[in-house]
Amino acid sequence: MNYRVEKDTMGEVQVPSDKYWGAQTERSRNNFKIGAEGSMPKEIIEAFAYLKKAAAYANADLGVLPLEKRDLIAKVCDEINNGDLDDQFPLVIWQTGSGTQSNMNVNEVISNRALVLGGGKLGEKSLIHPNDDVNKSQSSNDTFPTAMHIAAYKKVLTYTLPAVEKLKNTLLKKSEKFKDVVKIGRTHLMDATPLTLGQEFSGYVAQLDHAIKAIKNTLTHLSELALGGTAVGTGLNTPKGYDIKVAEYISKFTGLPFVTAPNKFEALAAHDAIVETHGALKQLAVSLFKIAQDIRLLASGPRSGIGELLIPENEPGSSIMPGKVNPTQNEAMTMVCAQVLGNDTTISFSGTQGNYELNVFKPVMAFNFLQSAQLLGDACNSFNDHCAIGIEPNYSRIKELVNNSLMLVTALNTHIGYENAAKIAKTAHKNGTTLKEEAINLGLVTSEQFDQWVKPEDMVGSLK
Amino acid sequence: MNYRVEKDTMGEVQVPSDKYWGAQTERSRNNFKIGAEGSMPKEIIEAFAYLKKAAAYANADLGVLPLEKRDLIAKVCDEINNGDLDDQFPLVIWQTGSGTQSNMNVNEVISNRALVLGGGKLGEKSLIHPNDDVNKSQSSNDTFPTAMHIAAYKKVLTYTLPAVEKLKNTLLKKSEKFKDVVKIGRTHLMDATPLTLGQEFSGYVAQLDHAIKAIKNTLTHLSELALGGTAVGTGLNTPKGYDIKVAEYISKFTGLPFVTAPNKFEALAAHDAIVETHGALKQLAVSLFKIAQDIRLLASGPRSGIGELLIPENEPGSSIMPGKVNPTQNEAMTMVCAQVLGNDTTISFSGTQGNYELNVFKPVMAFNFLQSAQLLGDACNSFNDHCAIGIEPNYSRIKELVNNSLMLVTALNTHIGYENAAKIAKTAHKNGTTLKEEAINLGLVTSEQFDQWVKPEDMVGSLK
Amino acid sequence: MNYRVEKDTMGEVQVPSDKYWGAQTERSRNNFKIGAEGSMPKEIIEAFAYLKKAAAYANADLGVLPLEKRDLIAKVCDEINNGDLDDQFPLVIWQTGSGTQSNMNVNEVISNRALVLGGGKLGEKSLIHPNDDVNKSQSSNDTFPTAMHIAAYKKVLTYTLPAVEKLKNTLLKKSEKFKDVVKIGRTHLMDATPLTLGQEFSGYVAQLDHAIKAIKNTLTHLSELALGGTAVGTGLNTPKGYDIKVAEYISKFTGLPFVTAPNKFEALAAHDAIVETHGALKQLAVSLFKIAQDIRLLASGPRSGIGELLIPENEPGSSIMPGKVNPTQNEAMTMVCAQVLGNDTTISFSGTQGNYELNVFKPVMAFNFLQSAQLLGDACNSFNDHCAIGIEPNYSRIKELVNNSLMLVTALNTHIGYENAAKIAKTAHKNGTTLKEEAINLGLVTSEQFDQWVKPEDMVGSLK
Amino acid sequence: MNYRVEKDTMGEVQVPSDKYWGAQTERSRNNFKIGAEGSMPKEIIEAFAYLKKAAAYANADLGVLPLEKRDLIAKVCDEINNGDLDDQFPLVIWQTGSGTQSNMNVNEVISNRALVLGGGKLGEKSLIHPNDDVNKSQSSNDTFPTAMHIAAYKKVLTYTLPAVEKLKNTLLKKSEKFKDVVKIGRTHLMDATPLTLGQEFSGYVAQLDHAIKAIKNTLTHLSELALGGTAVGTGLNTPKGYDIKVAEYISKFTGLPFVTAPNKFEALAAHDAIVETHGALKQLAVSLFKIAQDIRLLASGPRSGIGELLIPENEPGSSIMPGKVNPTQNEAMTMVCAQVLGNDTTISFSGTQGNYELNVFKPVMAFNFLQSAQLLGDACNSFNDHCAIGIEPNYSRIKELVNNSLMLVTALNTHIGYENAAKIAKTAHKNGTTLKEEAINLGLVTSEQFDQWVKPEDMVGSLK
Repeated sequence: MNYRVEKDTMGEVQVPSDKYWGAQTERSRNNFKIGAEGSMPKEIIEAFAYLKKAAAYANADLGVLPLEKRDLIAKVCDEINNGDLDDQFPLVIWQTGSGTQSNMNVNEVISNRALVLGGGKLGEKSLIHPNDDVNKSQSSNDTFPTAMHIAAYKKVLTYTLPAVEKLKNTLLKKSEKFKDVVKIGRTHLMDATPLTLGQEFSGYVAQLDHAIKAIKNTLTHLSELALGGTAVGTGLNTPKGYDIKVAEYISKFTGLPFVTAPNKFEALAAHDAIVETHGALKQLAVSLFKIAQDIRLLASGPRSGIGELLIPENEPGSSIMPGKVNPTQNEAMTMVCAQVLGNDTTISFSGTQGNYELNVFKPVMAFNFLQSAQLLGDACNSFNDHCAIGIEPNYSRIKELVNNSLMLVTALNTHIGYENAAKIAKTAHKNGTTLKEEAINLGLVTSEQFDQWVKPEDMVGSLK
Repeated sequence: MNYRVEKDTMGEVQVPSDKYWGAQTERSRNNFKIGAEGSMPKEIIEAFAYLKKAAAYANADLGVLPLEKRDLIAKVCDEINNGDLDDQFPLVIWQTGSGTQSNMNVNEVISNRALVLGGGKLGEKSLIHPNDDVNKSQSSNDTFPTAMHIAAYKKVLTYTLPAVEKLKNTLLKKSEKFKDVVKIGRTHLMDATPLTLGQEFSGYVAQLDHAIKAIKNTLTHLSELALGGTAVGTGLNTPKGYDIKVAEYISKFTGLPFVTAPNKFEALAAHDAIVETHGALKQLAVSLFKIAQDIRLLASGPRSGIGELLIPENEPGSSIMPGKVNPTQNEAMTMVCAQVLGNDTTISFSGTQGNYELNVFKPVMAFNFLQSAQLLGDACNSFNDHCAIGIEPNYSRIKELVNNSLMLVTALNTHIGYENAAKIAKTAHKNGTTLKEEAINLGLVTSEQFDQWVKPEDMVGSLK
Repeated sequence: MNYRVEKDTMGEVQVPSDKYWGAQTERSRNNFKIGAEGSMPKEIIEAFAYLKKAAAYANADLGVLPLEKRDLIAKVCDEINNGDLDDQFPLVIWQTGSGTQSNMNVNEVISNRALVLGGGKLGEKSLIHPNDDVNKSQSSNDTFPTAMHIAAYKKVLTYTLPAVEKLKNTLLKKSEKFKDVVKIGRTHLMDATPLTLGQEFSGYVAQLDHAIKAIKNTLTHLSELALGGTAVGTGLNTPKGYDIKVAEYISKFTGLPFVTAPNKFEALAAHDAIVETHGALKQLAVSLFKIAQDIRLLASGPRSGIGELLIPENEPGSSIMPGKVNPTQNEAMTMVCAQVLGNDTTISFSGTQGNYELNVFKPVMAFNFLQSAQLLGDACNSFNDHCAIGIEPNYSRIKELVNNSLMLVTALNTHIGYENAAKIAKTAHKNGTTLKEEAINLGLVTSEQFDQWVKPEDMVGSLK
Repeated sequence: MNYRVEKDTMGEVQVPSDKYWGAQTERSRNNFKIGAEGSMPKEIIEAFAYLKKAAAYANADLGVLPLEKRDLIAKVCDEINNGDLDDQFPLVIWQTGSGTQSNMNVNEVISNRALVLGGGKLGEKSLIHPNDDVNKSQSSNDTFPTAMHIAAYKKVLTYTLPAVEKLKNTLLKKSEKFKDVVKIGRTHLMDATPLTLGQEFSGYVAQLDHAIKAIKNTLTHLSELALGGTAVGTGLNTPKGYDIKVAEYISKFTGLPFVTAPNKFEALAAHDAIVETHGALKQLAVSLFKIAQDIRLLASGPRSGIGELLIPENEPGSSIMPGKVNPTQNEAMTMVCAQVLGNDTTISFSGTQGNYELNVFKPVMAFNFLQSAQLLGDACNSFNDHCAIGIEPNYSRIKELVNNSLMLVTALNTHIGYENAAKIAKTAHKNGTTLKEEAINLGLVTSEQFDQWVKPEDMVGSLK
């Protein structure tokens, strides 16, 4: 590989000659060979591009950056968000806890790419200084948390939530479609009074509805941006009005309602907004686990399980045994939920560990947050497309179970008295027979009376 | 001890003759000797009293319970909430996961106490049947989650939040009082540019403000009550309009804005509202940890630590060494936060484990939730009263540190140039001297110029 | 209430006149009104009594404490461990993180009780000084972690492990008893090839065997005692040989193999031994969850679940529906496991937070550890006595399910070829019939051949 | 892209024509587009190659696989472990929870690659059948957990532990080198009695020693392999003696002491060994957090922190402020520890969720385990190389702090009495002066006496 020499305040460093990054990025590459996760999430880099462009515009508006520099910086930022420079951000998550090195990576790439755009060659002195121009009115300490909020907000709003909505709508349609399918209820895993399959699915819909609301409730906090606080939150070295203006530009460029954080000290030293929104993502994971778990229990069988639902067969089960449809989408979903619960532990722990003016667990918080948001979105889409939309009731099995149930005997109370009804149930339980058989055997009701009086559909109430 | 005989459908049981509870409570006492935590949280029993009274009123309004029975039930419920029957609820948390046995405990106590109030003697047949009257239009499956929501909502709103507000207000006052105290900033634990102590404290206030908002955001979900869903959510065996009416009575009796849950299936089978609000309590714990940790770091010393803050001396430190004021309130607070983080793991895990129509991790969720709400409230009060209100700046130490800091050299850049300024800093760092000493030694500025140009108070910006 | 005046270096304090504790305990009572958990776990107080007695003996042996004082101290310690002074230790968990105040509580009670034993009256100057005598050669910083290890080791070894062993032995007996009960296997919750019920239970036994080994593996670390390190680990103010001798006495008095920690700095500043053993308790919780969950799934029904196991009916289920035996012990057990998982989060978090020479999360770690050890022991006993010993196979249901299973068709492959076998299975699946019916219908085998060739018991292998 | 057609029991699938995988892999690729983590960890694929080769050898030895097939399979396995086929394993973690699809991916690649090695062309019928030959005497249900154990054991033993040992040895050398550097101790973050820097570091060494032992204690469980249990643990369709023999081959090929699991039912249905070893990795994370946190606190400054340690400057700190050396390696290390704590939550949760004969959270457990093992190893290496080996005491600062400390006054007690000593300390605290100054001012000792009597080095004891 060919190298060129780059310099920073510590001296010279050899950098691969085809890369735009500079000395500080290269030092970090060498000093932090940690992890197999690959580099900083692309959403963070994208967010940096938005904020660097916004900062350039705000700086130019406020008279501290020439327009030509603004435009060059903006041009590179657009290239980054175009995906043209994806191989220029090699730094890992497990670096300095302020994310300084990724901020410098972005600064260096913009500076050097601007040089080339301006007709220069890598290695020459750039027109745009990584610190003095690209990082103007900024510090790692306010850019990285700003990037975290931009990336997190955008991911949740534009990716995770639509996927949850999609799944919710599918379940809602199922709930409506299944509204007359009367089935046995189960509490403590034991047979209970009946309900409709539509009612059962309506509970899932309600869970997702609440999860969506809970996530949205947290977004106001997440929309607050640290930018303008610079090194410790005081805004040292920023022009007056910069913090508000830069947030406006970020809002404009992303199309999302970001505002400047009312308190910059909190915004650097704590990441409670990340904790808050991830807490709601964790709640979503709790909901999804219950839903996916229920559906696989209801689809278990084909002969020795519950068997009330039929789910799509996406992969070969047993080659010889028909009906062995493994609930693989449910398994992927529940594994994702387990991951999100662990990520919440990591994020909460990291959130407690700010000291003085800075929390230095920023990259690990960003990494876990974005992983959860991606996984939950992906899993909702996958579960929706490959499982939920194909769910069908196993009508005969549902009917068989509800009709065999001993719980239905309660319907006879008003006709033949509690004592007689209980006698029928006990006899049926003892003999392994149906209520109807024993009711007739015991001479307490006729076949016609039984059919007329014992109707599961009359026991499911009117609550949706 | 004397005993009387009580009966249920399984047969006879001996019960202590001075207790109001009956057979099912006694069975549970014998079958679940688990844990040293004592019995079900009193907030749950209190909530049951509210809901049993409300159910009696709703049942009476809807014509399914005579007024005399309603009034007797209500009277016992008032006694319970008066604390007159505190020794009547012996059951532990680690019982059936639906809390059925605690529901029956309440039913039995109300029934037997009503007997005595009506002039009867324990052991006689009561006027009020525990199941047919006290539990009318109810099931354990909808009463216990209703009690959870009532208890959780009330505790958070009337106890935890006011305590957080109190601490926030104290910190706000400190922030205002300390607004002109210029001090060194610290990032990565290392010296950084200055800020005021007031600004530093304003970050804590902002954290608590956000935590309070986050908690309040979750209360709408928590205000939804399961009551009316009965066994599986269908509302079987409830009169028409009962669910709305009973929620209205609960709202009236508690003075809190409870409503009937729009979807009862969710309300029985999942406890996402508990997960949601506890997620916000966990966020509060994250915030409080950072605040308490910062304050103890800033108060560390007296000679070999940071020493910028003075905190109240509540207990003897070293008998011989003055100034050894251990940050004991901070320690209690951070331990509480560690507990709340663990409780969140328990609650989230439990939240995932609903099956079909019922989640059977109700008592453990209630226990952990109420412990967190109590501990956070208590710890905020204790920390406020015994630490926060007494915090004072150690003015001389703060001044010494900021004046000794090498970061101030940046103020000279515009006067003598970056190169010269850096030279001063490097010399001072090497010699362990002050910037002023070396600035004068090197002949770059006069003493008067230094004092005029290097003013930390000019570096703290205007952001609050 | 009557009070007397007690003094410490901060001045006078009023103390209830019937209590042995002194000024420092009273201050802590007033300053830490936190939590509803009650006071410091009794196991910690008991452990303190062991170590105070051991310290008195070691001090006497090494010539720094008179024999009369040793004997008076020892006498009070014996009273404590006799349970005679249980109401003398009122301090809560949420106090100073070093547990200093509980150490002083013990010192004060011993001192004042010794005064009374020696014929004096409370309020007089004691013969035995709480610091100079009772706390001689000690510091809170080494006594509290010593008490943690004594309490934790003793609890796990003498309570938790025997309970796990008991449950394991019950399951082992069941495994042997059920060794010929052939049943359907289930993977992905779906029907799979058969195994015996004994084999299934042998898996549970293997889990508990491994959990027991894992716990035992950690005990060596837990047997190391901090005592002798005093304030920072250097052993300042202890006579030569004291650390080894005091550990020997503790070992003698408790009958457990404690040794002095090879490194006292680690023993004060970190509590990795608590983290380690609790990690193994958490593993046990993981195992127990799986076992309890399996058993309730297998016992689900009576008609619409799996129904292969019958578990004891300890409380009334549905009054009218026989066979609704709620798996209440399983629910208590799984809730306990959820609690232990949360406690592990708290303990691990707390374990990370040692600073310099001291970890100040000692009480919260002790509290969570002892809660887990108690709950797991209690739950194993309860689950054993009220569930496991009464588990019986539902032979007819087991037989029905295995015989109906389509998986058995594989046994025909060698006789009629894979294609024909698959055809039988597919037809049976389509028609909802048995393999035997369709095999005969299709004319591929006779009834006799089917019975001879298709024997589930031949498919269960010889692995235990 | 060009495609060829592959078939499985569900029909035809188009597969990229340059890939060895077949229909089932391709279906999984399409059905599980979840996550940005990339594909199944390479350690799992490597482990599969070991076990497929071992299975081929065991099958051949037992007469159920021809030698030519054995050798072809073994050849491809060697290629896999050579890294020659790294682009052939595209499946993600979030697939079926049994890992079936990755098992089939390996089977298909071996089969098709063998075809090509044997002179055939992709798309032709292979000589080696993916199920009948490559998967002979196996099931996904026993291969995947076997691969998990092989991968986990190998990673921990050959990568993580050596890295921890390296760091431990560096800290041990520092401890020895610093054994005479007397410094102030700190408890509750407050000044305490002195110790040596060597003693302080010896605590870190002891922590890592215990962590290493704890990890090793768990390896016996992890060395047990499920292979031979096939679908449900019974070993159906395996030749007699196969399980022992295949474990021997795996042991031989890997050079690691693997054995067949004594109980195969546990080995499929639970993953307690993964829980156990990861529990010990989590303990290591707890230890490392404390160590890295201490070192950054001790290195904080340069002027306004503790400043007792000097750590290597790896990246530019402030361009103008010398001595601002950010503890970036400590930050990376503590972030890694936070990740491992979260991973433990995920693993424990997943471990509880086995049902019946199978735990279907295998891939998420493997992923989190291997991530932790990698991160801890990497972080230990990085922290060792870029921080620990370069740590030096700041001798002058250490001396200044210990000499200024008020704790030293205790050394005067025996010479001038407790009262006088306390008076000196109080005066010095009040005036912000040194003990020596006030001791002389108050006329209680001479300068010579002070120097002779007050020697911190006499207060550090003899404990290492």
